Amino acid sequence: MKDKRNASLKADFDVVWLTDNIKAGSPVALARGITLIESNNPDHRKKASILIENCLNSSQKSLRIGITGVPGVGKSTFIEALGNLFTADGKKVAILAIDPSSTISKGSILGDKTRMPSLATNPNAFIRPSAAGDSLGGVARKTREAIILCECAGFDTVIVETVGVGQSETVVHSMVDFFLLLKISGAGDELQGIKRGIMEMADAIVITKDDGDNQVRAKSAKQEFQRALHLYPPKTNGWEPKVLTASAYENKGISEVKELIGSYEDHCRKTGNFSLKRAEQNTEWMEQTLLALLQDRFKNHPKIKDLLPYYREQVALNKQSPFKAAEELLNAYNKGNN
Amino acid sequence: MKDKRNASLKADFDVVWLTDNIKAGSPVALARGITLIESNNPDHRKKASILIENCLNSSQKSLRIGITGVPGVGKSTFIEALGNLFTADGKKVAILAIDPSSTISKGSILGDKTRMPSLATNPNAFIRPSAAGDSLGGVARKTREAIILCECAGFDTVIVETVGVGQSETVVHSMVDFFLLLKISGAGDELQGIKRGIMEMADAIVITKDDGDNQVRAKSAKQEFQRALHLYPPKTNGWEPKVLTASAYENKGISEVKELIGSYEDHCRKTGNFSLKRAEQNTEWMEQTLLALLQDRFKNHPKIKDLLPYYREQVALNKQSPFKAAEELLNAYNKGNN
Repeated sequence: MKDKRNASLKADFDVVWLTDNIKAGSPVALARGITLIESNNPDHRKKASILIENCLNSSQKSLRIGITGVPGVGKSTFIEALGNLFTADGKKVAILAIDPSSTISKGSILGDKTRMPSLATNPNAFIRPSAAGDSLGGVARKTREAIILCECAGFDTVIVETVGVGQSETVVHSMVDFFLLLKISGAGDELQGIKRGIMEMADAIVITKDDGDNQVRAKSAKQEFQRALHLYPPKTNGWEPKVLTASAYENKGISEVKELIGSYEDHCRKTGNFSLKRAEQNTEWMEQTLLALLQDRFKNHPKIKDLLPYYREQVALNKQSPFKAAEELLNAYNKGNN
Repeated sequence: MKDKRNASLKADFDVVWLTDNIKAGSPVALARGITLIESNNPDHRKKASILIENCLNSSQKSLRIGITGVPGVGKSTFIEALGNLFTADGKKVAILAIDPSSTISKGSILGDKTRMPSLATNPNAFIRPSAAGDSLGGVARKTREAIILCECAGFDTVIVETVGVGQSETVVHSMVDFFLLLKISGAGDELQGIKRGIMEMADAIVITKDDGDNQVRAKSAKQEFQRALHLYPPKTNGWEPKVLTASAYENKGISEVKELIGSYEDHCRKTGNFSLKRAEQNTEWMEQTLLALLQDRFKNHPKIKDLLPYYREQVALNKQSPFKAAEELLNAYNKGNN
């Protein structure tokens, strides 16, 4: 039984088959490809690396949209409404999730197909929950690689969603072209909902649930956020972040969001900023990966594992200067390597 | 002549003499000690390291205040007025500067004693320009070490100022207990003056030049910033950032700023957050230093110096995946080390 399963897994992970069928747009191959890149098995990592290289040239043609918002903001219904508008325009939409809470619960709460019933059965949509049981850095790498596979499979619109736990928005922001913050009005949300730094990253803010009793509050929230956005300097790409209101329930304001995203893309492509930002994101990913690998290697060194807690305590208690401690740790590491 | 100068430099950098005299509160010894820690000479670095360790136990007793604001906001006059109020209370005030622009101009524009004429002649004040011709990371380390020496010399109030070029505010924020943002009203400043993320770091915002014709604008700017601060979640230490107005010219509102800083200190000491934040900052410095040292070692490796530009270009042009490139670079580095 076990052998049979291994044999079928091997077949699943035939890189040539995966490459050809992902390029042909097969959702089954795409799903298997993503499973391959999510695997931490060293053999799978090698295959995944080849698959990514194979797909790289066919990627880069999509618009990557990041969407974040606190739980309860109505992310699923909003993304479903927006996704359906895109597919109605003839677009192919992939939805990926970055869910740092899954690193704690070992289970994914995002990207669940049951949350988006009509998109889940839409032949031009692809929904993928986030990789569970991994570090944020690991999920980020896997999501970045999943974007490449989705693009290679012909998806011209990739939505990456996150609940904004930990640093997940920053991670999403670093891999998308357009970053959207969903906000809900009322309920004291203005006072507690925005995490430091998020509002400044947004290319647009959409106040959700602009329906029924909530419309007055939504309008005043819109004004408040517009004022707040004016306090920030213009973005380097010349884009001025906008605030919109929408109701996924009444299907109101969603097409305006879609149009706004379109005019953002036009703006960035005209100014040359679109490809510039992509190139910057790529080199930034490389630098980050390098740093993470260097740090991992250092922190997993047996000698450092022994010494680090001691130095951390000495430094916290002000018994040793942080610089001296860092130097001593590095000296111990260098000695351990020779 | 050259020998004589070297001999006198050697005498200046006698660590025992420096330690004793800094502990005795000698401003001459303090100034020489800071010159020692600013030196990049490897021998001096060794001595500086001993000096810092000697002074570490006597430090940590001051309140560290970070002040930032764009050029023209009136930082010098404000700091001078605030510093004089502190010394009038019997405090000893040290003013240090972080000036990233000096890394370009090789000359310091901050901390210039002529900008603060009355503090410069105040026996209970110590003013030190920032180390010129260095990277931001280098200036940050030197400023952090200078804080330790100032505290050891009996300065109970340390003000670190910056113009906010590059990431200098973030650097200052990471080494102080209280972070103050100076703002000027009018002149379109609301639209362009605040760099992303700075406002969220502030424990207080002071609108300067609240005098003459400017008072109406200052009042409305105050309201605007109060509204904007309300959009952020409360700080983890429970402190709610405040907005004040002040005029150093009319000596108006400065004592209110001093009192606000005092109530912040009380608040943080009562909640235990004061020492907690210090301990966190210390371990954070250690981790940052470690990472910087690891990165330096990597980037200065001859093999990496050769390869990095090639991989950067491949990745920017999307010819290779950032992860693959990072792995290949690290493999080349590992081989080069063996």
